[in-house]
Amino acid sequence: MQSAEHRDESLDIPRVMDQLGRSARAAAARLANAAAEQKNAALNLAAGRLRERAPFILAANASDRAEAESRNQSAALLDRLSLNEDRIEGMARSLEAIAAFPDPVGRVTEERTRPNGLVIQRVNVPLGVIGIIYESRPNVTSDAGALCLKSGNAVILRGGSVGFRSSQAVQDCMAAALAETGLPGEAIQSVPTRDRAAVRYLLGQMTDTIDVVVPRGGRSLIEAVQRDARVPVIGHLEGLCHVYVDKDADPSMAREIVLNAKLRRTGICGAAETLLVDRAGTERLLAPLVGALIDAGCEVRGDAAVREADARVLPATETDWATEYLDAILSVRVVDGVDGAIEHIARYGSGHTDAVITADSGVAERFLREVDSAIVLHNASTQFADGGEFGMGAEIGISTGRIHARGPVGLEQLTSYKYRVRGAGQVRP
Amino acid sequence: MQSAEHRDESLDIPRVMDQLGRSARAAAARLANAAAEQKNAALNLAAGRLRERAPFILAANASDRAEAESRNQSAALLDRLSLNEDRIEGMARSLEAIAAFPDPVGRVTEERTRPNGLVIQRVNVPLGVIGIIYESRPNVTSDAGALCLKSGNAVILRGGSVGFRSSQAVQDCMAAALAETGLPGEAIQSVPTRDRAAVRYLLGQMTDTIDVVVPRGGRSLIEAVQRDARVPVIGHLEGLCHVYVDKDADPSMAREIVLNAKLRRTGICGAAETLLVDRAGTERLLAPLVGALIDAGCEVRGDAAVREADARVLPATETDWATEYLDAILSVRVVDGVDGAIEHIARYGSGHTDAVITADSGVAERFLREVDSAIVLHNASTQFADGGEFGMGAEIGISTGRIHARGPVGLEQLTSYKYRVRGAGQVRP
Repeated sequence: MQSAEHRDESLDIPRVMDQLGRSARAAAARLANAAAEQKNAALNLAAGRLRERAPFILAANASDRAEAESRNQSAALLDRLSLNEDRIEGMARSLEAIAAFPDPVGRVTEERTRPNGLVIQRVNVPLGVIGIIYESRPNVTSDAGALCLKSGNAVILRGGSVGFRSSQAVQDCMAAALAETGLPGEAIQSVPTRDRAAVRYLLGQMTDTIDVVVPRGGRSLIEAVQRDARVPVIGHLEGLCHVYVDKDADPSMAREIVLNAKLRRTGICGAAETLLVDRAGTERLLAPLVGALIDAGCEVRGDAAVREADARVLPATETDWATEYLDAILSVRVVDGVDGAIEHIARYGSGHTDAVITADSGVAERFLREVDSAIVLHNASTQFADGGEFGMGAEIGISTGRIHARGPVGLEQLTSYKYRVRGAGQVRP
Repeated sequence: MQSAEHRDESLDIPRVMDQLGRSARAAAARLANAAAEQKNAALNLAAGRLRERAPFILAANASDRAEAESRNQSAALLDRLSLNEDRIEGMARSLEAIAAFPDPVGRVTEERTRPNGLVIQRVNVPLGVIGIIYESRPNVTSDAGALCLKSGNAVILRGGSVGFRSSQAVQDCMAAALAETGLPGEAIQSVPTRDRAAVRYLLGQMTDTIDVVVPRGGRSLIEAVQRDARVPVIGHLEGLCHVYVDKDADPSMAREIVLNAKLRRTGICGAAETLLVDRAGTERLLAPLVGALIDAGCEVRGDAAVREADARVLPATETDWATEYLDAILSVRVVDGVDGAIEHIARYGSGHTDAVITADSGVAERFLREVDSAIVLHNASTQFADGGEFGMGAEIGISTGRIHARGPVGLEQLTSYKYRVRGAGQVRP
């Protein structure tokens, strides 16, 4: 959704999109009852197809990159867009890893026998048809397609405009593998035009054929999706993550966690963006933490107390508290204990991931209970906000919404459930 | 949402509704951390208030009924609207029953220790602010308010226009009990106008203050909500429920289940609306079933084969297969085995509740797996589609959506979750 330039006047968008939705719906009905072995075979075959067709995919990617460069896209976008042999191998391995996960469909998550003898089971079933809207990252095409397939869902993919050719080439591999395995190729489709009117039609009109949309990307993408959507959305907002260092924090643990939370990788949604330091611990904790960050190459923007602790600190403005830098920049504020931290996070946080560092278990438990975020951590780095680190296998993203899925969205979160009731002639009195 | 007549020109709807949303949001933050005992005390106190203020509630209800009668509303609506001493006592007892349920908030639903020592818990938390939109049924005001309170959510109620005064009187009892218990009275509010513009504003504009809307009522209400909503909706479509009688069904079990599924109560969403009979079993099963239904006072509308089995059967049209009668009327069709039944249900069903009657476990398992409904039953009546019968306690409705909740929506389904991670200084490699 990077540009509005791709008008496709010759295309009858409602007709094309309705057809896409109908064929996805039909594919979903077939896929819902497919055996795990058949889905896994398709995933492994798709991995092979990616490797075989690597030269073709790389050629498509070169065209995409040339176009992106001619449009002066950012270096970060170009990096995410770029494929090479290694990255294609990584995508193939990711498909094989997803094939090796347990099948989430058919899993009985509850069973009870009622006094009247009815046996009631709650069983995972696929959601149906999932729309994935993402940026120009060809690896998301294979990852998201594979997670949807594994969870028995048909998917309609819509990647960023400048990755259009690469995504198509990757998606073709997936669809071919499906067809070769006897599964419907229409289980993994992509929107066949870069015209944004097609996405708007999908979000606003296809309530009968799309069960849920998962937007995956930056703030502007998510906001555009939420503005246009009449289909259900599993929300992914930005990760404005905080680390609160309490007066009873161990200084060396605090330093290690803060450096890791901010600097291990700055571009991921679990990276810390704001450090909150307990006023009662400033003398012992603040200057060493800020010094270590700056020495490690991080720009620090702080309030008056923080600037006093280290002259290299730049002044923070109101905007800083609300900014997801995704870069080696950290805003730092002194707060009045855990209450002050909870209040700051309630006001500025995005409900993603927040951590407390303290040796005081009472403070820790209050933070874990009262900070209303998808993931709250005690004495651990916010960079653990990841489905793989949670033992959930691959993830499609981290939901900051409260409906259906919160936190990492893995295979389990891509399912719904039904109740199977077995009786012996019971009627209701 | 019965009438568009209630224009309220003097009211600044955006201002009033935004204020309602903000105060609900603030109440939700306080309620999320309230102790179970305090919430239960408020529920028990509310039950007492309902009993004490019964004369006042009955007076409000008499005004509502007088207005409804003057507008020639249906007898069914008048019945649902009407209160008397017994019904108020029933509402009070329902509040006490909800107080006695276990608190769904804070329950740990998953716990794992990762190889790096991190202990990850998934814990139920409230959804936040719930909007409930329903018909003119004052008992829903207390039931829905109580379920939301128990699950730690703030609620904004919007009942049908003709029950406005009764609902307000009931809601006042609940809010008073909250305040007396030291909980925020704004945790249970109702839309203070009958002007439909307020509901449209709530559904379309209040995405920041409403976390989810649960519509509860007939098809037109649900469709209006789904048309206008930009907030998430837990969908409740109609219950177009089927019973499929297989050739290997026990005839007397089939008769008992079919009569119960259709006639025990015809006005509930779990009542059967279509009977499908296996062509291979017509001789043995069809005429006795149809005869028993007609003898019990049920109107039967059938296809040619059914009319042939009993001359009293009226002809069914295409419309009948898609109609939720909610009355002593049943459409009956002969189908080609379980495949024919699955196909018919996929085409005409509403994904609510469907049952198979057979002694053949292979047929039963295929039906249970392939019929894509929230509830599928083998050898039991569709009238078991009810949260109480499922052992879930009270329910707010039966979801036919696939996102977040499917089937009975009880206390558990009114929660979200968060991840609490406890570490000892772990950083991500």
